[in-house]
Amino acid sequence: MNHLTPMITLNPIGVARTPYTETSQIPKGPGARHLADGTLEIRPELAPGLRDIEGFSHLFVLWIFDRVDGFDLEAHPPSDDRPHGVFATRSPRRPNPIGLTVVELLGRDGARLRVRGVDMLDATPIVDIKPYLSSIPQDQLRRGWLAEAEIRQRA
Amino acid sequence: MNHLTPMITLNPIGVARTPYTETSQIPKGPGARHLADGTLEIRPELAPGLRDIEGFSHLFVLWIFDRVDGFDLEAHPPSDDRPHGVFATRSPRRPNPIGLTVVELLGRDGARLRVRGVDMLDATPIVDIKPYLSSIPQDQLRRGWLAEAEIRQRA
Repeated sequence: MNHLTPMITLNPIGVARTPYTETSQIPKGPGARHLADGTLEIRPELAPGLRDIEGFSHLFVLWIFDRVDGFDLEAHPPSDDRPHGVFATRSPRRPNPIGLTVVELLGRDGARLRVRGVDMLDATPIVDIKPYLSSIPQDQLRRGWLAEAEIRQRA
Repeated sequence: MNHLTPMITLNPIGVARTPYTETSQIPKGPGARHLADGTLEIRPELAPGLRDIEGFSHLFVLWIFDRVDGFDLEAHPPSDDRPHGVFATRSPRRPNPIGLTVVELLGRDGARLRVRGVDMLDATPIVDIKPYLSSIPQDQLRRGWLAEAEIRQRA
């Protein structure tokens, strides 16, 4: 274990616009379906970083639980009546309060991404977006430029 | 856009031990298979946060590209001869240098998780671990305490 590892500072790349203003409005638990539409508003100066993103059907969104204070090593998820270690749950009260959501990309308007499947509060800071490349059922998956590049390489 | 959003500071929860000491050793590109075994060494005082994690077959690991300096909005991934926006790629040179890897959990020894599928450099700082709950082919997926809790709730 290297205890000299430095701390890392994150700067939000944008904010999520969602229908949820209170956590009680967000579906939770094992049967929860996250079908709410929202918008990822990326800082305009970062818009060039979104080039070709519209070719992907699904995205990973990394974001900050910015209205959570502190953490617990033991979590009490709504889907169980027993506690579990925080790293075995999606609890917001984590040592590093990063959230991870897979969303479906509906469309792009400049630096705004219209997405389906948001489960974060409105105005949540976003810190990263990555293409989701695997494990979505094949008939629902598009891999944008990567699939095109593979085809070109095979030709 | 809320420009008052504060910066967030992350503290590593541990480090990854992997066979890779140089990025050139890490398989890259669309056909890359990440089958290397490694260990996630979590800080001993956080070990209670791992309780019940061994019931999950796969985990999300969030980590820091700690040997990367700066970022580019345009990325040149090895899998294509054309540039793409950084958020449409897995490039390490991202505005917030967070990596995301899905690993298979082989076993746990206290605060050490033996995993398969690492693709980060040795000694990479880890900032979060979450259970992977969907999209792995059903016959390879275990959902640990959550599946058990669902069965109890149905009884």
